[in-house]
Amino acid sequence: MSDAPPDPAETPGDPGTPGDPGTPADRAGSGSAADRAAVEAANTAFYTALEEGDFDGLKELWLDDGATDTSCVHPGWPVLTGRAEVLRSYALIMAHTDYIQFFLTDLRISLAGDTALVTCTENILSGGPAEDGAELGPLVGQLVVATNAFRRTPEGWRIWSHHASPVLTEPDEDAPPGPPSDQP
Amino acid sequence: MSDAPPDPAETPGDPGTPGDPGTPADRAGSGSAADRAAVEAANTAFYTALEEGDFDGLKELWLDDGATDTSCVHPGWPVLTGRAEVLRSYALIMAHTDYIQFFLTDLRISLAGDTALVTCTENILSGGPAEDGAELGPLVGQLVVATNAFRRTPEGWRIWSHHASPVLTEPDEDAPPGPPSDQP
Repeated sequence: MSDAPPDPAETPGDPGTPGDPGTPADRAGSGSAADRAAVEAANTAFYTALEEGDFDGLKELWLDDGATDTSCVHPGWPVLTGRAEVLRSYALIMAHTDYIQFFLTDLRISLAGDTALVTCTENILSGGPAEDGAELGPLVGQLVVATNAFRRTPEGWRIWSHHASPVLTEPDEDAPPGPPSDQP
Repeated sequence: MSDAPPDPAETPGDPGTPGDPGTPADRAGSGSAADRAAVEAANTAFYTALEEGDFDGLKELWLDDGATDTSCVHPGWPVLTGRAEVLRSYALIMAHTDYIQFFLTDLRISLAGDTALVTCTENILSGGPAEDGAELGPLVGQLVVATNAFRRTPEGWRIWSHHASPVLTEPDEDAPPGPPSDQP
């Protein structure tokens, strides 16, 4: 990410409210502060690897215990299952992406035993390969929410599952979800 | 759901390849057959409660240990956090839904310790309240994928997180994900 290395002491609250100590949900839940900091660092490392096109770094972050199946859903995509399929999708995405930056907001960590669930809003700015000699392709903004599951391993927290999806409704819209085509 | 009760001995493989014994990923992973059957039953109960508009049944299925934060993403929605917010959203959805049916396919269970991740495709058929004296509002089909996280509790497996998102690309489309507006 473009920010400084994560500060585990800092509550990742809404950037629009500096000094906000965080809602009770930010601080609630089981898990030591050290665990939560380690999970947040792993989550940050995931997005940093994507921003830097660091495929080896990304590969190392995905769970690889030979027993537990990983899964991944990119925004608008079906489910990808298994390490090979997941990593292939990232190789493809990296090949088509010249520039991508994630501004994470609303980050929350829920810890139970050796599993952590991280939810966050990914404010994405990305650009495809340049055409006609331009320096960069057109930049596109995307509002995406993600649920990332991590497992504790002897080597640290590793990604078990990533599910990301486009936000198609207003956050405070008081209406039931409909098919995407019905949404603005 | 409209199907018969889940048969834990049956591999939930690709419905397009009958007789397929399942990929290694279907059979791999830790967790006993009894655990996997119990997780699948909890997942089925979740969708049955939604189909039947059984709010109390749904409420009972969501994790309530007083320590672990739950989260929920409905298709196209931002993240909802905490039991109260999650249950309120379901009350709202149920109030706006006269009819909903889930045909689950591609169901896979990944088990590690006291956590299970279930991924599945939700083929949804739903209808809103009737208007002008009609018996039922217009029916709408939706293709959605979900990642459901369950925690083992003394009372059985309970929903820790539900993340559902619309499928906007073809399953075998060989292209990177773009903003939803660029997709068919």
